[in-house]
Amino acid sequence: MMPTLEQARGWYDAHDPVHGFEHVRRVLRLTERLGEDLGADLEILRAAALLHDAADAHPGEGEGRVSHEQASAEFAGEVLREEGWEEARIAAVQHCIRAHRFRGSEAPESLEAKILFDADKLDVIGAFGTARTIGYAVQAGQPLYAKPSRSFLEEGKKEEGEPHSAYHEYLFKLRHIRDRLHTSLAREWARPRHALLEAFFEQLAAEAEGEV
Amino acid sequence: MMPTLEQARGWYDAHDPVHGFEHVRRVLRLTERLGEDLGADLEILRAAALLHDAADAHPGEGEGRVSHEQASAEFAGEVLREEGWEEARIAAVQHCIRAHRFRGSEAPESLEAKILFDADKLDVIGAFGTARTIGYAVQAGQPLYAKPSRSFLEEGKKEEGEPHSAYHEYLFKLRHIRDRLHTSLAREWARPRHALLEAFFEQLAAEAEGEV
Repeated sequence: MMPTLEQARGWYDAHDPVHGFEHVRRVLRLTERLGEDLGADLEILRAAALLHDAADAHPGEGEGRVSHEQASAEFAGEVLREEGWEEARIAAVQHCIRAHRFRGSEAPESLEAKILFDADKLDVIGAFGTARTIGYAVQAGQPLYAKPSRSFLEEGKKEEGEPHSAYHEYLFKLRHIRDRLHTSLAREWARPRHALLEAFFEQLAAEAEGEV
Repeated sequence: MMPTLEQARGWYDAHDPVHGFEHVRRVLRLTERLGEDLGADLEILRAAALLHDAADAHPGEGEGRVSHEQASAEFAGEVLREEGWEEARIAAVQHCIRAHRFRGSEAPESLEAKILFDADKLDVIGAFGTARTIGYAVQAGQPLYAKPSRSFLEEGKKEEGEPHSAYHEYLFKLRHIRDRLHTSLAREWARPRHALLEAFFEQLAAEAEGEV
């Protein structure tokens, strides 16, 4: 049996705008659309999308033991075994989940893994990606903007005492995401999202630095 | 004596990206620029900008007694009397502070009050305005987006159980702000800020509703 959206609701925080259930819903929809267009296995994709961050919902629980993509892949195995899935198909879902991290240790090999990666990353740029980055900074007590040091701009290394602002996150990670996507369809969909991301953070810096 | 930026730092939360000290710094800079261009009394403007949200830094403290603009105006009176200001000039600062709210009971009459109002509102739109709205939603546990009801769209009235999302705040308040500014210079500066605000929230809704 296929895990349902209602089941998935129980695995995520409904009220966390950064890593909660609404992110999973958006990623699910994006994987389905990419998967249909690209002829992927939709059952594997759907299960992977629903479960890809499930271990994120309980921060601290397995901390230090395994990374969240490992923990989510293990949890997916338990869920899908209970649903009676074949081991080979469970492994395919687990590969998608383990390979969805931007800096994960496992690269996406299958079409389904590439699609989950791309769908997840589309929700890191655009309006929701921008909003989630701002939300994360607020949750973590980080500033929205701090002037990046020359060392950070040139080598990505912060000076001592330099805060990690939402703007730092944009410079270091978000603005490079569109170049890391695997499918050309996702790269096409990334265009307006990247444009908004860039416009937003460039204007944030300009306003912070006193331009009118 | 003029209250200093360093004094003001003590009146605000350094780490609150929504109502904290960085907002006051940006408003101070905008009031100074508008004030110089428009020939306003910069001393009154500067004091008003530094003190305009000072009572916000202590939420709950005077709650239910007076509104935050009243409380901030009273606090400004205490500070400026201590600095040896004349009563007439203190009253001019207090008028600016009491009249800076979007839905306040006192309308801005003096040039300085109009400028403070406009500067404060420029920081409610644009990249920082967008980020502060997202930050507020995250702090308050509100969703970033919820589909607005027809009743909200047509009359600004939420249906029973309808959440107040950041997108609701945009529809109800933020997108109207540029039309409420008092000085034509601020209206000019509002143009790129409004454009970004609109682009952001329109794309947020499109992404939430599943457009690619």
